[in-house]
Amino acid sequence: MLVKTQVKYIQSLSQKKLRDEEGVFVAEGPKIIEELLAAGNTDLVQLYAEDSWIRQQAFLPQNAVQTVTPAELERISSLQTPNQVLGIFRKPVFPTGLSLRNKISLMLDTVQDPGNLGTIVRCADWFGISTVICSRESADVFNPKVVQSTMAGIARVRVLYEDLASFLQTHADIPVYAATLNGTPLPKLGTVKEGILLIGNESKGISEELLQMATHKVTIPKIGQAESLNAAVATGIILSHIV
Amino acid sequence: MLVKTQVKYIQSLSQKKLRDEEGVFVAEGPKIIEELLAAGNTDLVQLYAEDSWIRQQAFLPQNAVQTVTPAELERISSLQTPNQVLGIFRKPVFPTGLSLRNKISLMLDTVQDPGNLGTIVRCADWFGISTVICSRESADVFNPKVVQSTMAGIARVRVLYEDLASFLQTHADIPVYAATLNGTPLPKLGTVKEGILLIGNESKGISEELLQMATHKVTIPKIGQAESLNAAVATGIILSHIV
Repeated sequence: MLVKTQVKYIQSLSQKKLRDEEGVFVAEGPKIIEELLAAGNTDLVQLYAEDSWIRQQAFLPQNAVQTVTPAELERISSLQTPNQVLGIFRKPVFPTGLSLRNKISLMLDTVQDPGNLGTIVRCADWFGISTVICSRESADVFNPKVVQSTMAGIARVRVLYEDLASFLQTHADIPVYAATLNGTPLPKLGTVKEGILLIGNESKGISEELLQMATHKVTIPKIGQAESLNAAVATGIILSHIV
Repeated sequence: MLVKTQVKYIQSLSQKKLRDEEGVFVAEGPKIIEELLAAGNTDLVQLYAEDSWIRQQAFLPQNAVQTVTPAELERISSLQTPNQVLGIFRKPVFPTGLSLRNKISLMLDTVQDPGNLGTIVRCADWFGISTVICSRESADVFNPKVVQSTMAGIARVRVLYEDLASFLQTHADIPVYAATLNGTPLPKLGTVKEGILLIGNESKGISEELLQMATHKVTIPKIGQAESLNAAVATGIILSHIV
C-alpha cells in the first residue's frame, strides 16, 4: 500500500526544483519504462506497478518494485490515463568531456513546449545525435511531459542547458547551421559531417544575437502556404537531409 | 458583456457532436485568428476579443465582433493561457469533386493525438498537400487542440474521414506509399509525382489490411537507437524527400 508521504514525494517531482534537488525524474507506462530499464545508464530508484504488469516481466529488481492498485497509480500519475507502471529513475549519466567534432549536434534556442522538446530528443535519438544544447529558458527535459515524448531517448541523448552565445563562442571552430526562412534550400546543402544545427523558438525563431553567430542558414523549401513548420518537424526534416 | 447562454454555447463546442450539428469550430489567439480571417474559405461567425486586440486590427467585420474582458475570455477559452481573441468559424468549404491525380495526398490510419493530427495538417499545408484522408477513429480535425496545432492549415487543407480500405479500393489506380520500418530507404525512393502517403497509428502503426493494399513501403533510415519516430515528424520527413 502506498503511504501518504510516498504519494506526496512522487507528486512533488512534478516540480523542477525538487527533481533537481533529488537528481531524479519520473517516467510512466510500460513502453518507456521497459526501454529505460534496458538502456542501462539511468539507474532505477523505484517502480510503482500494477500486478498485471509485474507478472509479465521476466526480470525485475525485486527490491525496487512496489505493487500498486489502479486507484493508487491514479493518485501518483501525471497522465490523464495512468498506464500500469510509474518509475522514478536517477538522471542519466553521460561520459565526461564533450566533443562536438565529426558529428552533428543540436542547439535549441528556447523551445518551450514540452511536447516539442521531447519529440526533438526522440528525433535526435533516431538520427544518432548524441548532444542537444538548450538555452536556459527552454523546457526542462525532465518535465514529465517531455520525458513521455522522448520515448526513452532521454536515456541516450545528452541534453545540456547553457548560455548559448557563450557556448558558441567557446566552440567557435564548429560550423553553425541556423534553420531560418531565408537560407540555402535544404536539398542544396548536402550531407554535413560536423556542425551544430540551431533551431529557434516556436514563435520568435532564433534570437538576433545567435543568428549572427551562425556560419550557415538553411531553409526547408515551402510549396504550400503555411507560415511555418512545427519546431520538431523542422528539426526532423533537416536532420534527415544532412545526417 | 457575455451572457450565460453565450458562455454555455461556446463551451459546448468543445464537443464534436455539437460542432458537427452547428457546422462550426473554435480557434483562439491572434496569430491563427488573423490567418483564418485572411484565408477566406472559412466564414467568420463571431469573434470574442479583448479591446487591446481589436484596436490593433485595421479591418474587422464590426457586426461579428464582441468585446470581452480578460475574465470573460477565460470563461470561454479552452487554452491554459487565454490569448486575446476567440473566434467561431464555419467549417471550411472546399470545391466539390476529389481528384488524387498528379499529386501527393496523405492518409492517416488512426492518428489519435490531437497535437499530432494538427501538426500533420500544418505540415501538409507547408508542402502543398491539399487532401488528408483520415480513418473514422482518428482525432477530429475541428477539436480545439487540433485547430490550434494546424496554425490555420485547417482552412487550406481538406481533411476527410473515410473507411480507408473502401477508399483505397475505389482509388485503386493511385499508388500507395506506406511508411513502415522495413521498406525502401527513403533517399532511394526519389521524387513522387502521384500517390497516397499512408501513415500509421502512434503505437500500432498501419493495420494489416491497409498494409496489404500498399503498393510501396518506405522507411526513414535510422542511425541511432530510437524505436520509432513521432508520427508528425515522420510525415514531415517523408514529404520533404518525395514532394
